[in-house]
Order: sequence, then structure tokens, then C-alpha cells
Amino acid sequence: MTQPSLQQLEQHDAFIHRHIGPDKAQVEAMLTRLGVSSVDELIEKTVPAAIRKNDALDLADAVNEEEALAELKSLAAQNTIYRTFIGMGYHDTITPNVILRNVLENPGWYTAYTPYQPEIAQGRLEGLLNFQQMIMDLTGMELANASMLDEATAAAEAMAMCKRQAKRNKSGVFFVDADSHPQTIAVVKTRAEHFGFEIVVGDPEKDLPAELFGALLQYPGSTGAVRDLTDIIDRVHEAKGLVTVAADLMSLVALKAPGEMGADVVIGCNQRFGIPMGYGGPHAGFFAFREAYKRSAPGRIIGVSVDSKGRRALRMAMQTREQHIRREKANSNICTSQVLLAVMSAFYACYHGPDGLRTIAARIQRLADILATGLQKKGLALTHDNWFDTLTVATAGKRDEIYQRALDAEINLRKVGDDALGVSLHETASLQDVSDILDSFLGAAHGLDLAALDSEIAAKGPQGLPKSLLRESEFLTHPVFNSYHSETEMLRYLKTLESKDIALNHSMIPLGSCTMKLNATAEMIPVTWPEFGKLHPFAPADQARGYTEMFEQLQRMLAACTGYDAVSLQPNAGSQGEYAGLVAIKKYFEARGETQRDICLIPASAHGTNPASAMMVSMKVVVVACDKSGNVDTDDLKAKIEEHGDRIAALMVTYPSTHGVFEEGIREICDLVHDAGGQVYIDGANMNALIGVAAPGQFGGDVSHLNLHKTFCIPHGGGGPGMGPIAVGEHLKPYLAGHPVTGVPETDTANGTISAAPWGSASILPISWMYIRMMGRQGMKKATEMAILNANYVARCLSEDYSLLYTGSDGFIAHECLVDLRPLKEASGITEEDIAKRLMDFGFHAPTMSFPVAGTLMIEPTESESKEELDRFIEAMAIIRKEVEDVAGGRYSVEDNPLHNAPHTLEDVMAEQWPHSYSRDVAARPAAWLKEHKVWPASNRVDNVYGDRNLICSCPPIESYME
Amino acid sequence: MTQPSLQQLEQHDAFIHRHIGPDKAQVEAMLTRLGVSSVDELIEKTVPAAIRKNDALDLADAVNEEEALAELKSLAAQNTIYRTFIGMGYHDTITPNVILRNVLENPGWYTAYTPYQPEIAQGRLEGLLNFQQMIMDLTGMELANASMLDEATAAAEAMAMCKRQAKRNKSGVFFVDADSHPQTIAVVKTRAEHFGFEIVVGDPEKDLPAELFGALLQYPGSTGAVRDLTDIIDRVHEAKGLVTVAADLMSLVALKAPGEMGADVVIGCNQRFGIPMGYGGPHAGFFAFREAYKRSAPGRIIGVSVDSKGRRALRMAMQTREQHIRREKANSNICTSQVLLAVMSAFYACYHGPDGLRTIAARIQRLADILATGLQKKGLALTHDNWFDTLTVATAGKRDEIYQRALDAEINLRKVGDDALGVSLHETASLQDVSDILDSFLGAAHGLDLAALDSEIAAKGPQGLPKSLLRESEFLTHPVFNSYHSETEMLRYLKTLESKDIALNHSMIPLGSCTMKLNATAEMIPVTWPEFGKLHPFAPADQARGYTEMFEQLQRMLAACTGYDAVSLQPNAGSQGEYAGLVAIKKYFEARGETQRDICLIPASAHGTNPASAMMVSMKVVVVACDKSGNVDTDDLKAKIEEHGDRIAALMVTYPSTHGVFEEGIREICDLVHDAGGQVYIDGANMNALIGVAAPGQFGGDVSHLNLHKTFCIPHGGGGPGMGPIAVGEHLKPYLAGHPVTGVPETDTANGTISAAPWGSASILPISWMYIRMMGRQGMKKATEMAILNANYVARCLSEDYSLLYTGSDGFIAHECLVDLRPLKEASGITEEDIAKRLMDFGFHAPTMSFPVAGTLMIEPTESESKEELDRFIEAMAIIRKEVEDVAGGRYSVEDNPLHNAPHTLEDVMAEQWPHSYSRDVAARPAAWLKEHKVWPASNRVDNVYGDRNLICSCPPIESYME
Repeated sequence: MTQPSLQQLEQHDAFIHRHIGPDKAQVEAMLTRLGVSSVDELIEKTVPAAIRKNDALDLADAVNEEEALAELKSLAAQNTIYRTFIGMGYHDTITPNVILRNVLENPGWYTAYTPYQPEIAQGRLEGLLNFQQMIMDLTGMELANASMLDEATAAAEAMAMCKRQAKRNKSGVFFVDADSHPQTIAVVKTRAEHFGFEIVVGDPEKDLPAELFGALLQYPGSTGAVRDLTDIIDRVHEAKGLVTVAADLMSLVALKAPGEMGADVVIGCNQRFGIPMGYGGPHAGFFAFREAYKRSAPGRIIGVSVDSKGRRALRMAMQTREQHIRREKANSNICTSQVLLAVMSAFYACYHGPDGLRTIAARIQRLADILATGLQKKGLALTHDNWFDTLTVATAGKRDEIYQRALDAEINLRKVGDDALGVSLHETASLQDVSDILDSFLGAAHGLDLAALDSEIAAKGPQGLPKSLLRESEFLTHPVFNSYHSETEMLRYLKTLESKDIALNHSMIPLGSCTMKLNATAEMIPVTWPEFGKLHPFAPADQARGYTEMFEQLQRMLAACTGYDAVSLQPNAGSQGEYAGLVAIKKYFEARGETQRDICLIPASAHGTNPASAMMVSMKVVVVACDKSGNVDTDDLKAKIEEHGDRIAALMVTYPSTHGVFEEGIREICDLVHDAGGQVYIDGANMNALIGVAAPGQFGGDVSHLNLHKTFCIPHGGGGPGMGPIAVGEHLKPYLAGHPVTGVPETDTANGTISAAPWGSASILPISWMYIRMMGRQGMKKATEMAILNANYVARCLSEDYSLLYTGSDGFIAHECLVDLRPLKEASGITEEDIAKRLMDFGFHAPTMSFPVAGTLMIEPTESESKEELDRFIEAMAIIRKEVEDVAGGRYSVEDNPLHNAPHTLEDVMAEQWPHSYSRDVAARPAAWLKEHKVWPASNRVDNVYGDRNLICSCPPIESYME
Repeated sequence: MTQPSLQQLEQHDAFIHRHIGPDKAQVEAMLTRLGVSSVDELIEKTVPAAIRKNDALDLADAVNEEEALAELKSLAAQNTIYRTFIGMGYHDTITPNVILRNVLENPGWYTAYTPYQPEIAQGRLEGLLNFQQMIMDLTGMELANASMLDEATAAAEAMAMCKRQAKRNKSGVFFVDADSHPQTIAVVKTRAEHFGFEIVVGDPEKDLPAELFGALLQYPGSTGAVRDLTDIIDRVHEAKGLVTVAADLMSLVALKAPGEMGADVVIGCNQRFGIPMGYGGPHAGFFAFREAYKRSAPGRIIGVSVDSKGRRALRMAMQTREQHIRREKANSNICTSQVLLAVMSAFYACYHGPDGLRTIAARIQRLADILATGLQKKGLALTHDNWFDTLTVATAGKRDEIYQRALDAEINLRKVGDDALGVSLHETASLQDVSDILDSFLGAAHGLDLAALDSEIAAKGPQGLPKSLLRESEFLTHPVFNSYHSETEMLRYLKTLESKDIALNHSMIPLGSCTMKLNATAEMIPVTWPEFGKLHPFAPADQARGYTEMFEQLQRMLAACTGYDAVSLQPNAGSQGEYAGLVAIKKYFEARGETQRDICLIPASAHGTNPASAMMVSMKVVVVACDKSGNVDTDDLKAKIEEHGDRIAALMVTYPSTHGVFEEGIREICDLVHDAGGQVYIDGANMNALIGVAAPGQFGGDVSHLNLHKTFCIPHGGGGPGMGPIAVGEHLKPYLAGHPVTGVPETDTANGTISAAPWGSASILPISWMYIRMMGRQGMKKATEMAILNANYVARCLSEDYSLLYTGSDGFIAHECLVDLRPLKEASGITEEDIAKRLMDFGFHAPTMSFPVAGTLMIEPTESESKEELDRFIEAMAIIRKEVEDVAGGRYSVEDNPLHNAPHTLEDVMAEQWPHSYSRDVAARPAAWLKEHKVWPASNRVDNVYGDRNLICSCPPIESYME
């Protein structure tokens, strides 16, 4: 008999079988349960023929983990790491190894979901609370949120909040310090343009307009100047405007806090607190503010609350997005933060403590002082009299020569204006670096004795700062910042926190729409390669050839997966992708002279971010109704098109729908919009059900964003980072976002800038590159098929006990299903929250609740879960169903039943007196497998208001937009 | 005021403060508690002036983590990684990334201790059980142990077991297959020489002696031959001898199992199942055997047992060392295994499953077949007709030319005999490799079509194996090998196991003598650098320049720490170090013509390995008594010296003593032995209390082994790997171990060979290098001081509730203390085991039990624990003391008290009916901190026989050696 060929034995497709949960036998069993004979038949029955893709994906064959890692390593090797002193918001830093390995490289942290279910997320909630405390302390502000996407978007959000808060101020003018980071100015300008604000950029000492609703000041300035902002802030306040200060976190260790100068908002970035530069991200922006603005602040705030037993418990507090995103007043569409990075920087602060940070800051400052003194002694002029870590040096016509000499020494400096060079010192800089920089400026024969300079400065004290600007206030006095300075203590603290949380390394997290699939180790490994981590985003392009090539390949891969023609990698979250897509559409219409198009049609089933994004580009949202199957009501669509005619700019539609169904009529829907001259935005949230079986770029989409953190395996990180690149048709390609510092190939800065970094969170793009490369043509399609199979299997099994809300015409669903709990609630009083919390007792994270329909659970198992795990979940749901029955039938009282009391904690079952009508085992180990492995919720049910309960992926339900 | 200098701000000594637990305030508080004014005063009061070291350590200044990593990286970069097909027991392999990151790089696995306390070690016990099952299945044997140090020592242990088992066979001859790996032959010969066995090396078909007690056969042979061993085995059995087969694990996937051919023992190495070659180790040797030999087999065996509630629980079964190490019959001194590596290979098998392994083996075989066919078609002769993955090719005088051509293509081949070249294919080999190898042999113009060869072979079936040698039996049919093939499932399985165990990432593991200090992340990171991992131990020396330089530096560092002149890095465990040290002493006396010296003096307080090691070099053990303070009784020593005169070879003494005391008389003791012409072996087990304050090489030692896995931060790995290099005085340097393949600089192979690899477990040496480099001169001494401070603080606090067994003359101890529980037992019936198990309820691993004195606990906190953690432990011990009191006082009955019932499991506290006289909280959360973080013992007390209870570090108590 013939043996397999070597090609078969080589198993280049080995990863496909590692990524996909069910094996052959399991697939067969599930197909049988569904009554179909093959996967092909299932796909025929689920995906409408009209959109079904018949050709293979234009991707290479799969390669295995070793091959892909070797290939990516050879790309990474094309990046060259110079010593970089460019500054501009990005600084080399040291990630403490204990944090690197036990947080950033630990699936217990990186595979966790956003902490919507606080009872099983107390670990990362504490990390985030530490982050907030750190930000509040360093900025001198009363409150801080749990992070923003980056510094530039934080500035843009601050502008919007200033506008909201300066209520009686009718001015549309926002002032921006000319010495802000250029990428910040660009993002703020873009945001202002589409909000309709006017931006004045200038020197705040001279150019402050008489009327303005707010101002953004950079502290220290991008070119290094440090000045007391008190007077400027006073002047803005006198004009009834509010002031946002963009501050550098490390500087704040040494400098007077902006809060002490009267700032209303302080924003910035946590990068230099132990987060690799990563060619631009991901990092956590921060946002600190006066308590008065707490209901208006963007992003998430973690708060201390109590659980049902009155014990302290953390949770996401004040879900402010609910309050401020209203029909006419949406100012923000952000749906995520940068949890993984935020907690890392908080742990960095815990590990170093205030004294450790002071030493780090003092060293940076000393190096700057030595450099400044040396330059001055040799007659070079500094642009500013005051500095912390950044100097701008006039070169008297010798700039190119000095710059090149530095490059020859593998040193990157910043070009400032026409004649100056900037130097920013940082945590990893050394005296040798300063010496080499001096050599670049002065030639090697300058004869300066740096050790002598050091002694001189040590004796005199800091050179670049007047006493009035030195920090006097204490910071990080909380015990958490003063207890874990040995590695042993830090390691155990991290472990204790981690062990409170449920992540994918414990069990399935079946979140509808959020796609918690495998984040494979091989995908994560390159993220911490120094070739990717240690590159400054504004390093000269020829030092980033590996990144550039990787971007181009990934862009081609993503275009192939979606059927579009071009991809922009700049948006660093799904929300930013939506925004970028709408901006591109708007620019497209501007170019065509169709500026009257200002209406965005959005079906009632859409993700909540959609209308918010539309608001941010000043489009008017018109909601299109859905029929009883959850599909777009084409009659209503026609009516709305009829009504609004040539004002229609776009339709935003999710496909397959957020109801988990492949709508049959999607082609017709797209055609209707196109016929009306509009563009079709297909929300990529559900791309996991499409790749290889249908392509939005082929069945009618003009633009889609892709949630790389969902479909393309970037882990959720406990609530960020994400990435939201957009894919567009050829006609929209000229309107993709540019960048003011580096530029972006084939784009124009006039298109605007979406994120601080030109390629968003560049250092996590290897994850998606690895995923697509390892899955290849075959695997990417197979993943889709298995996602659909798993979802249909779960739906079919659950349908024995629950009613499903929507199915396609053949009774099948797409990749997620909606379980309707409203009938049960009516019969028993048991709510969807009771069921969600009860699932924790089984070791499961709840599915998405009440989205897109209140009173439902949306379940998406993904292709990575095995049938065993699905069966465990199904068993849990069946047991729960019986418990609901027992409440409805009176066997349990409405007040005392396992659902109402869920989740049950260790504290509960340890009680000496057991007060319940069911047993301890029923409480905490209601299924057999829990005797093998039990994860305890760290708290009882956290006391939330109803509004919080109805949260869906942080975005408000579409209903609130309907007239 | 003057600011700190830049030098101070640079914090080159930052790591010292990460490694050491107590901060300045804690140190002050502890000194106060001890009534001393400074650390210096404490050291003066503890370390005898006579041995106190006054000069600084000859080590460089400390450098911080970044600096040390950069320095080591530059060394690593001097290694060059060729494609290596040398074989000889080492093959390139792929560590599955999910195992790499979640086991090898995870402190939850690598910081765990040996599973002596099975209730908190069920995770790694299951991993080990999987390992045993895998070995049994693949070898076709009835039993397997939980791993050996390496293949060569496994062979030597097998020889010793054959001798023990072949009881009526009086022959002293052991036959060794000439086609065994040369390093195996060398280690077996060394062992035989010192046991007094005769080794005959030859072709087993022709040269089998008529009388022999056993034989070692290699399968497949080192040069690749595969033959049916049945007839040879029958012939040895007819001569009443036993047969050990050294087998290659991957080959066994495809080949008939040795067990099916009648083998009595099958040994080998797990390396090619996913363990990096690491320039020689660490890997896990395996040892499989017939059930009849279970009481005689060396090493540990994990067995399935039950706990006190009758539930299944795993434990180390049949502590066979107890049985076979007897006064006159010691055959083995092994005290550890290679747990981390053993479980990794078992997980490799779980992840691939039998089908995956078959595919990997089939691919290796196919590549060998293609290569063999190609060479044969072109007229080259193979030495063997049968092969699996290894070919030996006659070169007809062209060997150097071919070898060089391969080198030019960055390929390493093996030189065999005078004219042949060996090629071993492996998991990472590709068709390209085969093509390049063919080019080397034939020149590039050979014209072979490899794809056509592949098709040809695929059609015909395996080329190198007759049907009779193909494996027909099933293997790895257990569900554990057939359930975790997706990464998600594997990840969760690993997590479930990990969460059952207590490791250093949870809490202090205060094991006396075992020194569970911090294993810092920065120390662990280089271990998985490919520059260290992917090097074959027999690669040409010029490809290993980085390793060579690192070895030399580490040797100098270790010499500086100990005060000796030279260091051998070959012994890969403490036990091997002891053996190597005694072998060196023996060789030294041989060279001096003093072969009559055959007595080894060993104090009663010695580690149990000492007498076992002495037995292994055929020395007679004479026990020297200890006085009531635990010190060597110098009168008895004098008497023994008097009695045995010039027969005295050595004294083996641990310093500070295993009683935890710096004996005042150590210099005198050493002098007495030297005066009698003997050598002093100072056991390095307690080096953690010496470095920087006293040097054994200076106060009288001639040789010491160093437990790098204790004092020098190599983690315990759950019970291995360790490293046991020896440091010697100049006069012993000429007698250090050599190596038959690579040689070892400045040694002679006539000295014998201790381990399979020339530099032992080379790839973990970077851990100790990093530790010493980062601590530097100051830090290494400070660690010693803090270890002494922490131990004295714990001792002083515990002395309020417990009696301490030994203290020095000033009332101080060294780095560990002995708590005497015998009075409590007398008063209450509570045993030391009750207390050890009760500590689990507090989240602590028990201290060392009943070593060196029965009925005691030996506590060593190490320098890495903070005062907070020490205080928690002290509080736990105080609570336990009260509980004992309550039993003694009758408040608790003898049968129902928290100590007797410990540890308490989740199962216990979940009981609906609580049967105890104390509360659930007293049972499981007897201290406040447990409400924050509770680790549950996975089982109730495991049912052990008394013999097992008295185990100490696997080595038997010295008492059993006393006449």
C-alpha cells in the first residue's frame, strides 16, 4: 500500500489543527446532530448562494509554526535598532522582566476579556484601579479613567469633553499649543474638522484667542520647554474655557503637577512606564480630570463598590458612554481601552515605587543636564532655558552634518524646525550615549570631562528647572506602590491577582460578537521580540524595513480575506476603524462635491458604536427598522432612501447581522444604497463568519473595519489592546488616513490622521500576520466553517431548552446565536443577569447580555472550542434551565434559589450555617467536572444599577438612537 | 545639598534589591528583634572568627538585569547554530510553543519543589505519571520510573541493578555493545571501575562472554544499525545475565519494542520529544523495567494511591532508595530526577498523540530513506542494511572532503571510525537538508530527483526496516494522549494541572537544606534563547565559543565563591558532584600510590547521599559521632582516625552543618584529617550560608560540590533539573572528569566520565552565571548575610513556641533551624507529619521533615523572603502550636482535630454535614490572609507507609548507616 508523501508527512498545515478545536470525529458528530452530511452542505444551508464565494482565497498555503516564526524572524531582522533620542512622546524603557514574563507573556492576563463581569475579574480590576491611582497621583488630578487608546486620541477626547463641559461658552474655537507633539495636533485637527470646531495653533503666551472653549497645552513642550502653566490656564479660565494639559508621565515624577497649576484635564501616555515603543503602540493613553466632569469623561472608570454580601468589590463604574452618547450629542465612540498596557504600567509603578521612580527620573534628568551643560560650555545654544529630559539645540547651519554623524554612530536625533536638533533622554540612556551625542554635535575632540560635569551638577542640583517647577507633592503613597519591590513579592502579587480572574486558559468565553478564539502562543511570541519592540515610530524609514514589509504583506492578506483593494493599518481600535471609514467616505464625497450627503442609515440591529461613529463625523443617524427575523426591513430602507434622497452618505450594516444571521437580502440592500449614491460600510465585527465563504468587498461593501483583536487573533488583553484597520474599495483608497510625521505611503495628510502612530499598534500586528500565515488559504476558510458549525451545534442543542431568537431560512444560524430569555423571565422572574452570574458557578464567563436585543444572551463559541467544551457549556445551560423551571414551579422560592444568589463564593460555601434551600454542592459545583477544577468568583454579585446591567460591549443599544 | 552621582543613579546594583526579600526597614526590625545592632554584628556572632573571610570576593561589581542580559547575549552570539545531523543521542526537535511558554517559561512549573508533599503536587505528579506511561508504552515494559539524570547514567544505574538482580550470578563481567553511544560506554566504564566490575566491549553477535551478569545493547545502534535483539537477549538470559537495552524514543514509535524482544531493562533519553539539545542538557533519562525489579529499580516511581477519604491521589511510590541503599550495598546515590523535562516530554506526547508521533517518526524515516536510496543509487556504501533515522556511509577515502563540504553548507555530520560519516535525521530535518547533504557527499551535480525518490519510496514502503522489526503494538492509547490536540485544550490541561500545585509563585517554601530562593526571571530568560538551546553537545568546538567563554567565566566565579582553584561543570546533580569529587580523590591517591586508602569518614549529621556516594566508589563508610549540639564529636573523630590510620581516604562534612550551625571546630577537624593523610570533602549543600563570609577552599576543604539548583538559583523544576559541579584545590585539578567525545580542557579521559554530556546540563548554566553576574561582589555576600538574618529571625520568633534543637555558642544559628517536635508529640500525639500537612491549610509547603533528626522540622527561609512572608509563616506556626496545645489539653480529641485531619480540601469544606469539633474556617482558613488568597490541596492526606513519611530529600537518614 502507498504511504503518505513527504509533503503530507511534513505537516505544513499542522497549525490549522491546533487552532481549530473539534477534531474529525467531533465534526462528524456535530454534523450528525445537525442532520447535514457534510460541512459543505452546512455552508450551503447557512450562507446565501448570492454572496457565497466560489474561488479560493488569494492567500499562500499554510505553513507551520516553526516555518512562520522563521519567516517572520527574517522580516524582523530587517529592522535595525539604533539608540533613539527622538522623543515626541515615545521613549525607550525597560519592561521589568517579572512583568514581561508574568503579564505580557502570560495567557492568564492576555487572553482575559474586558471586565464586564466583575466577580471573575477582580484581579485586572485591581490592576486598573492601581493605574488610575498612579495617574491621579502623578497628574495631581481628582480622577482618572482606566486608559485611552493613545495620547493623541486622548487629546481629541479631551477637546470634545471641554466643549461639552464649557456649556455656556458658545465659541467653537479650540486652542492648541504649537509645541504639542505634531501627531497630537494632527489627530485633534482631524477630529475638530469633522465636529466642526476651529483649531488655532500657536504660542499660548502670545496667541491665545480671546474667545475659545478650551485649550491644549503640552507639558513639557514637545521640544522640551518647561514652563509654569498657571497664568495661561488662568487666562483660559477667564475666557470660560477649559484647559487640557498633555503631560509626560516620567516628567511628572520631577515636575510640579498640572493639577496644581489649575488644569481641568490632564492627558498623556503610559508608554515610558515599562511599555515597549513597538513602533508606535500599543500603549495606554491616560485621561485625568476634575471630579466635576466625571459624568462627562470618556472611557471607563473602575470604581470601588460592594457585593451582595457587603464586601468590597471593584467594578467598572459610571458607564459614562451611556450618558454622553445621545442621539444628537455623541462625542465619542470608544469601546475599549488598553487594559493590558495600563496594568503593566501600574505594575511598573508598584515594582519601582515612588523612590525607584524618582531615581529613574533623576538619572534621566542628570543625563540631560550633563548634555546641556556640555553643549553650552562649547558654545551651542539651547532653544529653551528650562528642560527636564528634552533639549532642542540650534546648530548654526550644521544640522545635516551633525544628524549624519549621529546616524553613523547608530543614534537617531529629532530634526526640529529648519536648523535645530532635538535630543530626548530616557530610562535606558547612559553616559556613553550622552558622550556619543556630544561627539556628534562637537566632533570627537571636544575634550569635555563628563565625570567632572556630573560632579559639578550633583553639587549644584538640577540645571534645567527653577525651584518653582520642581515637584513638592508626594505621590504613590498608597501601600500597593510600597509593598512589592522584591521580585518574589511582585511575582506573588501578580499571581494572586491573576488567580482571581477567568481567562481563556480556564474555559470557553462564549461572547457573542466578541469572538474569544484561541490566541496561539506562536502568534504571541514575536510581540516581545526586541526587533519589533524597541523601534521608535518616527525612526528613519530605512531602519524599519522589516515592519514595512510586514505591513505590506498583512495589508495584502487582509485585502484577500475581505475582497477589498486597499487597507489602512492606522486605526488602533474597531471604533477608530469605523471613524476612519466614515472620514474616508466623507472625504470621498467632498472630492466629488457632494457635501450635502450627511445622513448615515443604520439598522436597528447595528453595534452601538455605529451611530456614535456617525455622530463623530457630524452625520445624522437615521435608523432603519428590522423585521421580526432580525433582518433589515428592506421596505423601511427603501422608504428612508426615498425620504432622504441625495442626502444619503452611507449605510452602516453588520454582516452577518448582529442577530447572528446571514441575511439573504444583503446584495439588494447594498444595491439600493449604491443606487441612491451612498456608500456601504460593512461593519467587520462578524468577519469570523465570512472569511473564505463570502467577501464583503465583493458583495457590496465599500469599506469595512476589521477587528484584528477578534477575527484575527489579537488577544483581548483583559480589555485592550485592539486594532481596527479598515479595508476599502479602490475608489476610497485616495482618502485613507495620513500622518504628519512619517507620512503613510500613498496617502495624503490632508485626509486627516486617526491615531497617534502611523500604523496604529504596530507591534501587535505580527499576531494577525502569524495567524493568517499559519492558517493559509485552506485554514482561513476552515476556521469560518468550523465557527459556523460550532455555533449551529450549540444553537441546536440549546434549542431543546431555550427559544432561539433568530435563524436563517433553513433554520440555521451564522457564527453566533441569540437565546431569548424573556419568556423564562416572565414565567419565573429569573433575569438574564441571574443566568449570566450563575454561569460563573460553572466556571464560565457569561455570553454577551442583552445585545442586540434586551433580555437575550448572544453566544459565539468560535472555531477554537472543542465539542467537549461546547458540551460542558450546553450541560451548564441545561442545568440552569431546570433550575429556572424549579423557580417557576415553586420548588425554589424567588428569593432563595441558585440563580438569584449566583455567583456563589468560597466565602459562601465556607459558612458554618448554610441558609439555602439547596446544597453547597448545588451552589458551587453543580456539574461533575467542577470537582476536578473549580475557579472561584472572587466576589458575590456586584451591586450595579440597571443601566450598567444592560451594557453591551460598552456601547449603548441602538434603541437609544431611535426617535 | 549634593545630589547623588550619576553612578548611584544608574543603579547597577538594582538586582540585589530585587533578589533579596527584606528592605532596609525590615532588616532593621529583624535586627532589633535579635538584639543586635547591625548585620556585621550578627555575622560576627554567627560565623566563627577562625573561618571568617576578611577579603572581598574576587567577583566583578554587580550589573543590573539589562546589563547582564546584554553581556550574556553577546556571549550567546558567539555560538553558531549549524544544521546538525550528528545524532549520538541528541537530535534537533521542536518544543511545542504552548509547552515552551506555559511550562518551561512558567514559574508555576519551574519553581515547584520535588513532590514530596503529594497533596499540593498532584499536577506535576500527573505529568510524571504520564511520562511513565509514555515510556512504558514505547519501550513495551511493565514499569518505568519518573526519570533519570541522563541516558548514560541511566545505563550505569541499569548495570548496577542488573548486578543486584542477577543474584546467583557470581560473574563480575558486564558486556557493552560496541555500537553504544561512546559517552554511555565511558560513564558505564567509570562506574564499573569504581564498583569493581569488568567491562567487555564488543559486537554482541560475536563477542558475548560466556559468563556475565548483564549486557547493555543499543537499539538502534549508535551508528544506525537496527537488528532484532531477541536471540542475543536469549543468550544472555541463558547465561543467567540480564539485558539492558538503550533505546531511542523516536525510533520506538516505528520499531518493535525492546520489551517484546525480552529486554529486562530499557533505558534512554527523552530529549528528542521536545526538549532543546541545549549543548548536552538538561534532559530526562528514562528507565523502564520488568515489574519483578520494582524494589530494586533506581529513581522515583510515581504511583496511584488513595487519600484518607479514599479518593484517588498520586504520590511517589516505593521509595526504592530506602531499600537498596544499605550499609554495604549502596548502588546509587541519586537524589533527584529531571521532573521539568520529563513532564515536558510527556506533554509533547499528549499534544501530538500517537498519530502525531507516527507522522513525525514517518517523516524522519522517509528522509533517511530518501538519503539512503540516493547515496546507494550513486554507488556509496552504507555500513548497515537496516536503519531508522541514522545512516553510516563509507566514503572511500573522501571523508575529509565531504565533511568539509558539509561544514561549508553549515551542516554538521558525524565522523565514524576511520573512513565513514554518520548522518542522523530528526524532527526538524527537511528535504532541503537531505538535498544539501547529498550535495556534500556527491557534489552538486549528482542529478538525483528527490521528489521522484520520495514517490518511489512512498509506493514501496519503508526502506531500511524489514517487516519483522516494524512496530505492530499499539501505544499511547490512554485518553490523556488522545484528548489535548488543539492548543486551547492543551493550554487548559496545563493550567488545570498547574493550579493544583504550590510553587514559589504562591508562597515561601521553607525547606531546610533545599534553599528555595528566588529564581529570577532575568536568570531564566537566557535558558530559552535558541543560541543556547539549539546547539548539539558534540558540535565542533568552534561553533560553541559562546558556551566555552561562559563556562570559563562561570568556573572562575564559582572558584571565587568557594575559595577553590578549579571547577568541573560536568556533574549534572549534587549526587553526581559528590561522586565526581570522591572519584577525583580516589584518582589522586592512585597517582600517589596510596590505594590502601579506602575509608570515608562521615559524621552522623551528614546528608544521606554522602555515604551512598562513598559506597559507589567502594569506600568503606565509617560514621563519626556528633555531640549533643549537633557538632562533630572531635574525640570520636580522633578515635576513628587513630583506629583506621592510613586507610583514611576522606572526610565528608557539610558546612555549616546539616543541623544548621557553624561548627566552631571546623578548621581543627580539617587539620586532623589532613594530618592523617586524608582529603576533606565539604558538602556544598549549605553554601548559601557561606559565600562572601567564609570559603571552604580556604578553611580546609579539598573539594566541594555546588548545588547550582540551590545556592545558585537554578530552579528546582518540580524535582529537577539540578547541577552539581565540583570545585577543587589545585592538587585535585588533574583528576577532574574528562569526556570521550569532545574532551574537556585540561582533563584526561582516564579520569573517567561522570555524565553523558561534557559540561553536564549546559543550557541551565546561564541561570547561575546571571545570578552571580547581577549580584556581583557585594550582592553575593549580602545574600549570605540576609539568609543568616532571615533564618535567625525565624528561629528567634519560633523559639517562643517551639524548642530549637541546635544553636551556636552565642545562641545564633546559620541559615536554617531545626525545630524539635518530639516533646509535642509526646504530650499530644501530634506528629511532625500532622504539622507538615497542617501547614498546607495555611498555603505553605512544609519544611524538611525529620532530617537530619527524626521528629524535627528544618526551616530555611532563604534571603529572598520578605519579613511579611516570614511573619505569615511564624503566625501559622504559632496557631499550630496552640492547636497542639488544645489537643494536649483535651479541647480537641486525638482523632478529631485540625492537625490530624490536615490537609483540608475543598471537598471537605463543601460537605453538607460538618462532622468536626472545629469550624470550616478553622479547618481551611485558619489565618486572616487566607481570605484573600487560598490555594487548595488537591487531595486529603495521602496514605503513605511510615517509611515514606521519614523520607528526607529522597536520601535515607544517616542512622541507617550506623553499626
